[in-house]
Amino acid sequence: MLFLVGTGIAYNDISIRAAERCKGCDVYIERYTSLVDDEKVRYLSELFGKKISFLNREDLEEKAKEIVARAASKNIAILVGGDPLTATTHKILFIEAKKQSVGVEVLHSSSAISAITGESGLDFYRFGQVCTIPRWSDRYKPVSFYETIERNLSHNLHSLVLLDYYPEKGSTLSLHDAVNELLAAEEFYKKGIIEGGTKVMTMRNIGLSNQEVKMTTIEEAKAEVASGMFAVIFPAKLSEVEKETIDGMTMV
Amino acid sequence: MLFLVGTGIAYNDISIRAAERCKGCDVYIERYTSLVDDEKVRYLSELFGKKISFLNREDLEEKAKEIVARAASKNIAILVGGDPLTATTHKILFIEAKKQSVGVEVLHSSSAISAITGESGLDFYRFGQVCTIPRWSDRYKPVSFYETIERNLSHNLHSLVLLDYYPEKGSTLSLHDAVNELLAAEEFYKKGIIEGGTKVMTMRNIGLSNQEVKMTTIEEAKAEVASGMFAVIFPAKLSEVEKETIDGMTMV
Repeated sequence: MLFLVGTGIAYNDISIRAAERCKGCDVYIERYTSLVDDEKVRYLSELFGKKISFLNREDLEEKAKEIVARAASKNIAILVGGDPLTATTHKILFIEAKKQSVGVEVLHSSSAISAITGESGLDFYRFGQVCTIPRWSDRYKPVSFYETIERNLSHNLHSLVLLDYYPEKGSTLSLHDAVNELLAAEEFYKKGIIEGGTKVMTMRNIGLSNQEVKMTTIEEAKAEVASGMFAVIFPAKLSEVEKETIDGMTMV
Repeated sequence: MLFLVGTGIAYNDISIRAAERCKGCDVYIERYTSLVDDEKVRYLSELFGKKISFLNREDLEEKAKEIVARAASKNIAILVGGDPLTATTHKILFIEAKKQSVGVEVLHSSSAISAITGESGLDFYRFGQVCTIPRWSDRYKPVSFYETIERNLSHNLHSLVLLDYYPEKGSTLSLHDAVNELLAAEEFYKKGIIEGGTKVMTMRNIGLSNQEVKMTTIEEAKAEVASGMFAVIFPAKLSEVEKETIDGMTMV
């Protein structure tokens, strides 16, 4: 049997259910789609009383068949950061298990996206489509996230903007780099939705002990060069309740 | 200190982190905003080795100040279903703690919304705004959820439609009742988006051991009178990858 196991956000966010399952499994971990830091790996290895093997990107992309085939004769757990199944990689493993008639179970856990929308204080039902600011390369500089933000704003909906994750750094794009991409997108589309004074909420390390929620401006966010797990929210026009909620929740 | 503790979806979805915290707290539970069944309460009470006190709706709405005041001198944990902070009730407790300068910490857990979007096999980035089909009373029959579904479809975005939760039944609106409201909304708006043959995904008890995901039609969903925790997804035009993913994930 194959278990796709969410380890949640914090190092000890794994559920009791998942921890019990893992004790009877060969345990692997993938750290490519979202953050699983060394502290978490050590903690989980001690908790399960067993070694945890790393799956590299090639294992996941090319050896899904082999991993699943192994799960036909023994219990295999694949740990992931956050909640499984948002990433395509996890769905491929799930489907491969179905194809090979190997039992597959997903163990859900805390999700950064749910935590971020909650901790923002904004009304969950007023979020529109989510988008990601990808890391740019010299040749590939997509700016289509701007269209999502603009469409959400035009319907008076909030935009949750995720920042691309760098597995090799254990952090997302910095706010500084993200704001530079946002300003370049503004330069391209010229609809006037992203300017120095535009209000945004910046969310850092949400669900961890050092989380930070700030209502700030694009200009101030641009000055932020620290590393961490970031997301940016472009709020639509705030309701009175939302204003009070944000003021109340971010009170020091 | 006040802890807002997500207990997740399944009875043993609580995180190890949260379970450890609760052992040092007076523990209360609210069962009004989402499902926490008796099995879960028994399990958690045994796990913590202590009695769990129920908070009724009045406690939550009128006595938030008192509950928080108690947390000034001792550790108080308030358990909730799923992930905290989606519900206004939880935000009110959070804000009240800030007002009274009482420390407050949120312990995140698995969220039905994250689990449903993942288990659907649909591309997470193609979901638009979420809406809820509320329970109707004789006098109050809102149909505005239709506008959200229609707008999402017009932008080729999927709609996650939650069904109102009945705490006194421990289940949501049935599919049968939800479809009747959807059809009445169609009758009102007449845009032709909800008809007998319209394809929908019905999601039942997602994250529990008896979860069901079905690609079906409005007509077939209407025949479903079983109780449970339901949600409905109105998919936009499926991409090839989504088609393959759904076929693969729902393979028997």
